[in-house]
Amino acid sequence: MSRKSRRSLKEKFSLKNSLVKEALSEFLGTFILIALGCGCVGQAVLSRGEHGGPMTVSVGFAMAVTIAVYVSGGVSGGHINPAVSLAMCVTGRLKWTKLPIYILAQFLGAFVGAAAVFGIYYNAFMEYSDGKLEVTGPNATAQIFATYPAPYLSLVNGFADQVMSTAVLLLAIFAIFDTKNNSVPKGLEPIAVGLLIIVLTCSLGMNSGCAMNPARDLGPRLFTAIAGWGMEVFTAGNNWWWVPIVAPLVGGVLGAMTYVIFIEIHHSDPQPGEENDVHAKYEMTNMA
Amino acid sequence: MSRKSRRSLKEKFSLKNSLVKEALSEFLGTFILIALGCGCVGQAVLSRGEHGGPMTVSVGFAMAVTIAVYVSGGVSGGHINPAVSLAMCVTGRLKWTKLPIYILAQFLGAFVGAAAVFGIYYNAFMEYSDGKLEVTGPNATAQIFATYPAPYLSLVNGFADQVMSTAVLLLAIFAIFDTKNNSVPKGLEPIAVGLLIIVLTCSLGMNSGCAMNPARDLGPRLFTAIAGWGMEVFTAGNNWWWVPIVAPLVGGVLGAMTYVIFIEIHHSDPQPGEENDVHAKYEMTNMA
Amino acid sequence: MSRKSRRSLKEKFSLKNSLVKEALSEFLGTFILIALGCGCVGQAVLSRGEHGGPMTVSVGFAMAVTIAVYVSGGVSGGHINPAVSLAMCVTGRLKWTKLPIYILAQFLGAFVGAAAVFGIYYNAFMEYSDGKLEVTGPNATAQIFATYPAPYLSLVNGFADQVMSTAVLLLAIFAIFDTKNNSVPKGLEPIAVGLLIIVLTCSLGMNSGCAMNPARDLGPRLFTAIAGWGMEVFTAGNNWWWVPIVAPLVGGVLGAMTYVIFIEIHHSDPQPGEENDVHAKYEMTNMA
Amino acid sequence: MSRKSRRSLKEKFSLKNSLVKEALSEFLGTFILIALGCGCVGQAVLSRGEHGGPMTVSVGFAMAVTIAVYVSGGVSGGHINPAVSLAMCVTGRLKWTKLPIYILAQFLGAFVGAAAVFGIYYNAFMEYSDGKLEVTGPNATAQIFATYPAPYLSLVNGFADQVMSTAVLLLAIFAIFDTKNNSVPKGLEPIAVGLLIIVLTCSLGMNSGCAMNPARDLGPRLFTAIAGWGMEVFTAGNNWWWVPIVAPLVGGVLGAMTYVIFIEIHHSDPQPGEENDVHAKYEMTNMA
Repeated sequence: MSRKSRRSLKEKFSLKNSLVKEALSEFLGTFILIALGCGCVGQAVLSRGEHGGPMTVSVGFAMAVTIAVYVSGGVSGGHINPAVSLAMCVTGRLKWTKLPIYILAQFLGAFVGAAAVFGIYYNAFMEYSDGKLEVTGPNATAQIFATYPAPYLSLVNGFADQVMSTAVLLLAIFAIFDTKNNSVPKGLEPIAVGLLIIVLTCSLGMNSGCAMNPARDLGPRLFTAIAGWGMEVFTAGNNWWWVPIVAPLVGGVLGAMTYVIFIEIHHSDPQPGEENDVHAKYEMTNMA
Repeated sequence: MSRKSRRSLKEKFSLKNSLVKEALSEFLGTFILIALGCGCVGQAVLSRGEHGGPMTVSVGFAMAVTIAVYVSGGVSGGHINPAVSLAMCVTGRLKWTKLPIYILAQFLGAFVGAAAVFGIYYNAFMEYSDGKLEVTGPNATAQIFATYPAPYLSLVNGFADQVMSTAVLLLAIFAIFDTKNNSVPKGLEPIAVGLLIIVLTCSLGMNSGCAMNPARDLGPRLFTAIAGWGMEVFTAGNNWWWVPIVAPLVGGVLGAMTYVIFIEIHHSDPQPGEENDVHAKYEMTNMA
Repeated sequence: MSRKSRRSLKEKFSLKNSLVKEALSEFLGTFILIALGCGCVGQAVLSRGEHGGPMTVSVGFAMAVTIAVYVSGGVSGGHINPAVSLAMCVTGRLKWTKLPIYILAQFLGAFVGAAAVFGIYYNAFMEYSDGKLEVTGPNATAQIFATYPAPYLSLVNGFADQVMSTAVLLLAIFAIFDTKNNSVPKGLEPIAVGLLIIVLTCSLGMNSGCAMNPARDLGPRLFTAIAGWGMEVFTAGNNWWWVPIVAPLVGGVLGAMTYVIFIEIHHSDPQPGEENDVHAKYEMTNMA
Repeated sequence: MSRKSRRSLKEKFSLKNSLVKEALSEFLGTFILIALGCGCVGQAVLSRGEHGGPMTVSVGFAMAVTIAVYVSGGVSGGHINPAVSLAMCVTGRLKWTKLPIYILAQFLGAFVGAAAVFGIYYNAFMEYSDGKLEVTGPNATAQIFATYPAPYLSLVNGFADQVMSTAVLLLAIFAIFDTKNNSVPKGLEPIAVGLLIIVLTCSLGMNSGCAMNPARDLGPRLFTAIAGWGMEVFTAGNNWWWVPIVAPLVGGVLGAMTYVIFIEIHHSDPQPGEENDVHAKYEMTNMA
């Protein structure tokens, strides 16, 4: 494609409308998140542990987030998660009018991402359970796409789990991007967010798989309902499906507000480089 | 939250007192360290290895440190560890008058973080051992919160272990933040500290779990004593509990002094970029 | 070697021809990719899992890519993959006239890299299967060098798998290097590409080992055909060998075009730092 | 320690002699490399796999290198390896007169580091094999300190293995620090070197443990000879001990020269930022 043809392409198809651009970006980002992230779960489950386990799922899913944020970060902020978008609205970082479009794009991206995982591993799914797509039992594969609670988990405990993990997610994201704190250098935030996902899935992943993202959970769940797993994906786990939708939205706002109240609100005004420098903190030698 | 409401919030609640700000920051940082870090141990233990093992605990705990330092680094230096705060005082990087407040905030954060782990995994704890909370034996869960010595470990060897690991921790932290050495770029120090924790837990974690942090150990231990594990958490391991408190304080100062004596004190005075540049070192071609 | 002798060396042998320089660079980069990358597979297979497994192969191969891009990135762009070079041509980032030379250098590098793995592990190969070099069965070692499909995989599914994984590879590479998006800081792109390889191998590695690179697959396959595994390396898996050559070329172009259409083409023109800053995105507070 | 007392300390003890400073730095760096690196092997072996395995050893040892380079990089270049120092001399990056002191400091650091591992795990060593310190057999522990060849390995293959792995090590180090290539940003080189060690140990670690460093191998081997393992540490593996000393020195020079000949010598002269920018490479759109 020559420079000239690129330019004319740009003239014809370039979107002037910022919101449509951002919707495309969130769609693509969430697609990648699910295609790669749920792909990691799929590889571990479908190979019965031979090609993956807790570590590949945790690190793989985390790096899926990193890549998804690199793809969509510069255009739409790389939310790829309605709980993040909502928290951004509540704290005045995203216009409320954009919220429905962001969320819709995220759900669509997650749905199509789930379809991609099913397509790429179609032969493996058929082989795994002789063509039966099951939600529970030893040959269950529905947990590749959406999250389900551990047998021991009560709804109350599960709800608290999702509130807390999403709260920590947002609290840490706010820290990572807070230039008055010890923020990550520009262009490396997606990697720091990936490291955050590693610890969240290693520490809070056992109860219910740590969805922390309504689009990540409902999009693929809808796909499985349609693709052959049936309505059991909604009834399983004592009708678990609504928890990873409602709890992350609550938790995200809670975590963002916690960061604002504990840290952000107390930042001294604009004299930059004065109090908020961890390097400086370690080098203060003029005392005692 | 509109810009205006944010401003009025800031006017009402913003703390003018730097020490209170810093205490909040250390509290929140240590809370995250324990909630996520001990969460990783919990996930590995409570799932009996199915959702975690040595690698998820090592990497997960390390990334918990990274996130905790991102959250608290810009405000209070991100010590989240009395051994670090003490070493900072001894080397003139923190005012001695601030030390008690820092340590208190760290202990409280660790205590509340332990409570969060217990709460989030409450159902799992009950399932794991039929409601009994045990300190020793095959169904022990106390080691999720505080550290206990391996059966073979003598108190002398255990004390030396904690002195040395904390010494290396502080020595390396001083190197990471020493701008006259090959220091990590601003905003990436928390990641370097995380990598340091990975190697420390992989190499010195077997004797007693590598606490290296009095608040990380005593805070959760106190919580378990109250929450149902009982006073055995203090008597177990030949009254082990005081070792991960005293030894890290000694080791931290020792490590910091070692760095100062071996490296820092010999830095040539202010001509920056002259001798202390690893890049330059590799490119010196004007010789022989 | 003194400065003077270096200078005279430079005068005598320094290449003025940019294309020859770039060919040397791609050769060396792809050599390292295969020597280290296939070395990781070799270590896991030849030790029958004792010195490696899914995680060491995934992380090890990814870091082999990182190192190979560091070695060749500054001179030739560090493609080390014909699918990357083709996508660069199609999107006007590489001259079409250079393409054949790049691809040739990549194939040669991969071939020699495979020979290095065989040489270094010669004793281990002989020990592993009593001197027999097998393509299939429990003592197969051909999969150390080239990729083979899982038994369940159809050609159609396998082709789609390679198209999609290479598409995501290129799409993400374009994002990582797009300075109008949230691009990785200069000098750290090779690490971000490594993280991308980790998630791709953890999520899309189960069907056929995720070659995504015609040179990486055909070069070592040719080597094995000659070195003693015989022509079965081409017939195995229903004549699988052409899939990891054709599909990645298609997928790479597809992924690059997807990025251009979804993201790049909509970037607003040159006012830098205005809309395309993920940091700014998170800090926009002037609204609502 | 007040600012004033620090200053007087500095006046009294600060070393004016650059070489003594550098020797201290190399000693401390190599001490940390061995104390933490061999500590990782120790934890995996002494816990019989319960607290470590191939992944913790590979990642842990790599991060030990990273930390050791952070500690010593700014003062002495962070060689911590005679093969690196020799290659630096051969390519005119280190004065030949400094070489003996560097190497001596590295050996001493490695010896003391091995003593630290033995001390910290003294109880564990005694428990592991009932107080017997064995070089071979199921209860062997000598391989925690120095490297030994796999049973299948011939001396010729082993020598080639150490030449090649050290050659790749140096080649990649030269790329990482070459500012005319796509070099790692200042302050992050130690992390890139760590990633390099990960892939080297995952891909070339099976034959003989991938020493690549005469000080790393001989220092601890001497320690074990004295500490109770006896002279068998030298005779084992067909008198293997000299291979990880001689081969890395040869390989290091070979790798450095390869980089110079394939890449460095062809860099165009000083117009910086023109040809040697991987970012620019990916964005060249003015063609075709």
